[in-house]
Amino acid sequence: MDRGEFELIDAIRSRFTVPGGVTGIGDDCAVLPEHGGNETLVTTDMLIEGVHFLLPQASPDSVGWKSAAVNLSDIAAMGGRPVGTFLSIALPAALDSAWVSGFMDGYSELSQLFDVPLLGGDTNSSPDRLCINVTVLGECPVGKSLKRSGAVPGDIIYVSACLGDSAAGLKIILGGGPADSVEEMEVRRHYQPIPEIPLGMHLQSVPGVHAMMDISDGLASDVRHIMEASGVGAEIDVASLPMSSQFRQVCAAHGWDPVELALCGGEDYKLLFTAAPGSILPDGKCIPVGRITSGNELRWIGSDRDFGGFRHF
Amino acid sequence: MDRGEFELIDAIRSRFTVPGGVTGIGDDCAVLPEHGGNETLVTTDMLIEGVHFLLPQASPDSVGWKSAAVNLSDIAAMGGRPVGTFLSIALPAALDSAWVSGFMDGYSELSQLFDVPLLGGDTNSSPDRLCINVTVLGECPVGKSLKRSGAVPGDIIYVSACLGDSAAGLKIILGGGPADSVEEMEVRRHYQPIPEIPLGMHLQSVPGVHAMMDISDGLASDVRHIMEASGVGAEIDVASLPMSSQFRQVCAAHGWDPVELALCGGEDYKLLFTAAPGSILPDGKCIPVGRITSGNELRWIGSDRDFGGFRHF
Repeated sequence: MDRGEFELIDAIRSRFTVPGGVTGIGDDCAVLPEHGGNETLVTTDMLIEGVHFLLPQASPDSVGWKSAAVNLSDIAAMGGRPVGTFLSIALPAALDSAWVSGFMDGYSELSQLFDVPLLGGDTNSSPDRLCINVTVLGECPVGKSLKRSGAVPGDIIYVSACLGDSAAGLKIILGGGPADSVEEMEVRRHYQPIPEIPLGMHLQSVPGVHAMMDISDGLASDVRHIMEASGVGAEIDVASLPMSSQFRQVCAAHGWDPVELALCGGEDYKLLFTAAPGSILPDGKCIPVGRITSGNELRWIGSDRDFGGFRHF
Repeated sequence: MDRGEFELIDAIRSRFTVPGGVTGIGDDCAVLPEHGGNETLVTTDMLIEGVHFLLPQASPDSVGWKSAAVNLSDIAAMGGRPVGTFLSIALPAALDSAWVSGFMDGYSELSQLFDVPLLGGDTNSSPDRLCINVTVLGECPVGKSLKRSGAVPGDIIYVSACLGDSAAGLKIILGGGPADSVEEMEVRRHYQPIPEIPLGMHLQSVPGVHAMMDISDGLASDVRHIMEASGVGAEIDVASLPMSSQFRQVCAAHGWDPVELALCGGEDYKLLFTAAPGSILPDGKCIPVGRITSGNELRWIGSDRDFGGFRHF
């Protein structure tokens, strides 16, 4: 390592307070003290320029925010509390220290929203393309994490927020950028999703909540993951899908099909979960969209179409 | 995800047995049961085509082996036991399923040598360059992990094996490839380093061992990390540096300076540690090369040169 890398690490480290008793950046490994009665959650996601985001369209802070967000959302998806993040980054020479500073602004702004320290990572030069990998460690009371495999026939299927805004934002970006403040809001939903950490942690403690995941590929794909893992079927009531007014507005303006975008657009980073009827759920954040059935079929109530879901590979 | 990614994940998953009580690949997060009395170790490293390895010079299995090795070596460096690995990979279209299969051969061969399961990860397409990120979780009895900061004046400085073979191997690769079986051996040392997991775990339990790290940048750089973290100086006895006979042979044949290569070449992935005089160390694997001094100076005994160390950023 030479001065450049040390300065970069110092610039990253200076933004975060490492909790007492924890060894963070500066040694070979991060060392976390034992937490009695908890299990450890780990998730990792890679984001590549040209695949997950475009430069220079995406601002540095939005790339930083999203790199943390997509990973924290996986911790939320299990009902976990994030304990710390680990950031690997391969930086092309074209991205200067102002870019890195902007990236870390976004990364640390979201991290601090949930009080999550950066505990380690790896910095490298890249010959051309920006590549980022984030790993998050989380914790959850032993045996309490919510998996995809817990759904049972009769469960109500819920989502935690309006769907489709992120996908609409991406279409606006690819179409040349936002034309007004409503479109700007949709673009922000795409670049700066807010993972459902507090709701996930709450749902983990609610009796009757059986299965959970985050919506990254779109509800149409993701409900299939719960079906496969749980060995169940599902019915989705297309008319009940929650959509924001600005989403309906941009869909109408551009002639986009809101149902298809809400179901198949992806990158919502909201929660999809199932719970027994009568479960005591928080108001406002739990919108029923269907139910779990026996068998293995996926039925769309109120539509004669089949929604294939998002493909990203 | 479409068929391709599922097949890739299945191909990866089928190579590993996930221990009972652990949730591995197939959910949003890996869930590890609590281990009483242990602390968790985490390390992550990114490897990029053209920076950390060249294609097609590097065979797929050597890229897989090395991706696991450099990370496992960080766990060894703390005296930890590796618990599981997490692999993110961005694959260019030019690398087909045979390449991936070869990569996983190397990755899993090394992992199985130390009985380490793959517990999660992320697969992506890459527009051009192969990029790999590995995260390893490890564990260590609470308060027992060996850090860079523990060295005290009077400690003997040890290395765990011969130095320089990996650096010689890299020079042979860059020079067009091995010309004979001795050069092939050096190339293998470069591509397939064996992390010092058992020795690291043992040293963690030996009274008097104070500081440890792995040698990735080369002894000349890495001893400075221990000096800085511990606030001490060091003397290295250049005549005592352990070198293999094949290393001396290829250095002589090519006119390379063996001392410079052993000190500054890097990528040895062997252990560098300090211990109080009289500590009971295992035979054969602990070669004294100097001692820790008060102050903050680094002195080379038996040489009037200054060895700057490896720069990789």
